[in-house]
Amino acid sequence: MQELTIHLNSKEGLPLYEQIYRYIKEDIRTGRIPAKEKLPSSRALAAYLEVSRSTVDLAYGQLLSEGYLESVPCKGYYACSIEELYRLTPAPEIREPEVSGETPHYDYDFTPNGIDLENFPYGIWRKISRNILLEDKKELFRLGDPKGERELRETISNYLHQARGVNCSPDQIVLGAGNDYLLLLLSALLGTDHRIAMETPTYKHAFRIFRQLGFPLSTVPMDAWGMEVEELGKTGADIAYVMPSHQYPLGIVMPIKRRLELLSWAEEQEGRYLIEDDYDSEFRYRGKPVPALQGADSGGRVIYIGTFSKSIAPAIRISYLVLPRELLQACEGKLHLFSSTVSRIDQMILNTFIKEGHFERHLNRMRTLYSRKHDALLLGLRPLLGSCRIAGERAGVHLLLKFSGGITEEELISRAGEAGVRVYPLSAYETGGEKKGKKTEAVVILGYATLSEDQIRDAAGRLVSVWR
Amino acid sequence: MQELTIHLNSKEGLPLYEQIYRYIKEDIRTGRIPAKEKLPSSRALAAYLEVSRSTVDLAYGQLLSEGYLESVPCKGYYACSIEELYRLTPAPEIREPEVSGETPHYDYDFTPNGIDLENFPYGIWRKISRNILLEDKKELFRLGDPKGERELRETISNYLHQARGVNCSPDQIVLGAGNDYLLLLLSALLGTDHRIAMETPTYKHAFRIFRQLGFPLSTVPMDAWGMEVEELGKTGADIAYVMPSHQYPLGIVMPIKRRLELLSWAEEQEGRYLIEDDYDSEFRYRGKPVPALQGADSGGRVIYIGTFSKSIAPAIRISYLVLPRELLQACEGKLHLFSSTVSRIDQMILNTFIKEGHFERHLNRMRTLYSRKHDALLLGLRPLLGSCRIAGERAGVHLLLKFSGGITEEELISRAGEAGVRVYPLSAYETGGEKKGKKTEAVVILGYATLSEDQIRDAAGRLVSVWR
Repeated sequence: MQELTIHLNSKEGLPLYEQIYRYIKEDIRTGRIPAKEKLPSSRALAAYLEVSRSTVDLAYGQLLSEGYLESVPCKGYYACSIEELYRLTPAPEIREPEVSGETPHYDYDFTPNGIDLENFPYGIWRKISRNILLEDKKELFRLGDPKGERELRETISNYLHQARGVNCSPDQIVLGAGNDYLLLLLSALLGTDHRIAMETPTYKHAFRIFRQLGFPLSTVPMDAWGMEVEELGKTGADIAYVMPSHQYPLGIVMPIKRRLELLSWAEEQEGRYLIEDDYDSEFRYRGKPVPALQGADSGGRVIYIGTFSKSIAPAIRISYLVLPRELLQACEGKLHLFSSTVSRIDQMILNTFIKEGHFERHLNRMRTLYSRKHDALLLGLRPLLGSCRIAGERAGVHLLLKFSGGITEEELISRAGEAGVRVYPLSAYETGGEKKGKKTEAVVILGYATLSEDQIRDAAGRLVSVWR
Repeated sequence: MQELTIHLNSKEGLPLYEQIYRYIKEDIRTGRIPAKEKLPSSRALAAYLEVSRSTVDLAYGQLLSEGYLESVPCKGYYACSIEELYRLTPAPEIREPEVSGETPHYDYDFTPNGIDLENFPYGIWRKISRNILLEDKKELFRLGDPKGERELRETISNYLHQARGVNCSPDQIVLGAGNDYLLLLLSALLGTDHRIAMETPTYKHAFRIFRQLGFPLSTVPMDAWGMEVEELGKTGADIAYVMPSHQYPLGIVMPIKRRLELLSWAEEQEGRYLIEDDYDSEFRYRGKPVPALQGADSGGRVIYIGTFSKSIAPAIRISYLVLPRELLQACEGKLHLFSSTVSRIDQMILNTFIKEGHFERHLNRMRTLYSRKHDALLLGLRPLLGSCRIAGERAGVHLLLKFSGGITEEELISRAGEAGVRVYPLSAYETGGEKKGKKTEAVVILGYATLSEDQIRDAAGRLVSVWR
């Protein structure tokens, strides 16, 4: 029997069994106890160390389960042969790269991506969340329906019917934590061998996600009414991704005729779909919202995507798909593979928020607020109207300025930057491909959701002074 | 000028502009106003209807934006030609299929998937969530870091280092709403052209997800220490999916030697990875938890997946990937394409829950609780020990019973079912492929997390009476 040098220290804070475990492990790792060597019986070691036998048993048990010892019945414990011991040295600590590089400073940022959170009803949200946690405790912490809570899907289906003219039953709705996730899920449901057609310019983020997921992509030019259906037909695409209520970034509302043409295209062939991204249709400052394309789809060709990121808050992380009934039937089994990505608590909070009327009131407040910002921006930019046209206004939270006097986007952006104002070039939203004709206009995008009316007035004044 | 028959009704509740809009839309849809027909000027229509001109403007604006009218400068408004009007009839309402079919009744369900929620500290969770919503309001509703909140990633990295021996910095951690999502994300980061090797039997749910995502899959047999590395080498796989701390469903703890062999396999060739699913390593009832394979990985070959679904609650929907540094660098750009699927509020609640020590206390409580259930089950099953062996015990929340007397799994399950007890066949976790040798044992799985000690005692008694 090999003599083990174990110095137990009862003051060290480590339990005795752990000290024994560490000594023996270290000895096996360093080869002080060679492979195949028999270890003392737990009774003998306990007597030798003057500890209880169960303490040694605990240490041996741990060494057994980690594979440092093996137990041979009726014989005892043997050290295992551990090859490649060098691996056990921990990887060298690598410091994280420090972020460097200066970002230019802007006083005002007309980002088209933000939303106004000043008016979010925190108090109500907090109260609902407290009540939800009080009410129905255990159930909410169990895994829920992969498609999302039935109650919330019913509420959303009613909302979509009334507010967006979407015709669907709750079973067609699939909730997910954000649009990016829903596109991932769609790719898993449909497979990535479908060619997707997107407009140019378009929502570049979705374009990049589709590309990353391995979908073949085609770019389709737009006229004043949206995606050109004849051009779409030439691409060989199965799926067309459109934003009929308010195209991003151009702000075009697709007229009913073009919508019907798109639906016809989709129905011409089995397996064709339209993805309707209805990202900010809640905000229109004249008239009522334009109904969704899905509402005119009698052939089951529209996959509708909506979100509460724009209308409530980005961090809410609740978006939804409305799947056509036939597609749903084909992929219901696959859908059940992926557990819901939205916590049930958050789903119940949102459900109450909508059902108690807070969502509608919030939307009305935000519509008024955004409408005021929109008007302030239009008013502030009025002195420019000799040299540019405004497009895409009266809906959403951004608009476009089109300059035809020969000035370039780069020049517009750099002059604005010198005045401390950040604006965005339309060309950043183009997806390449063949462009129709020569570019005759320079177009910049101004999002006004995150700035206050005062800030908008000041920023617009600066833009006028450098652009006029 | 065509005469419009518009009967305005100020008592109807609908705003006047909306009534005008509906009349004209209906007339265009039904062809009463033919395509290309000129409409009255807004001034003339307003005078005729005795309403204000802005009311008519609003109606015309809506019709314009939806594409029912077009405006010809200096001429006026014309009805658009709407072909394919039939589309506008709403799709017939389809009733959802009613769920039919009887599910057999069980008094006790030894599901291996549930967790015990009786002891979840709801009060603490609620209090933290209330405080989080009070503290830092606006910021939490903005979109956060795609990889998850830095603070929570730091907390998790510390926890993983201390509790699981995982070596990583917070930047290597990516949070996601559940394991299913993280596998989806991984497929988007790595591409699906890697062959994935899985043990048989294995965690079937992950197997199905990989298959659905289009990964080619190989099945590798296991010996008593886990995946057979020589067999793995023959599959041509790039990625091996393993659960070294507690294999599901067999409950094997992979010894250090096999771990090192797997790491060697992964380092032999560029682009090989091990996915370590460390799903329930928190629960061990003798000795301390076995450290993670990731901690022994100096070559950056282990993609580690952990979750709070098992240790806190399934509905929490927070899991995490630990990516090897080199892989992280290669896919950091792609990672930023996908916004986080976990709400920031939930992330901050979890962060506080861990940092204030509630998580550790909860784990300790659950360990004691599960350990008692584990012991009650072992005790209750003792009379069976003549006819079967117990395996995979002392860790996790399930164990296996292996019968070698010639009885089949079907028979065991049906006899248990007749006694009102549901147990699960091991064969359900096999992934097909070539099996090594002939099957000589019938194995059933018993998960004990969701049953109380009393229920376990009664259920075990029933099993003994029908299986002995």
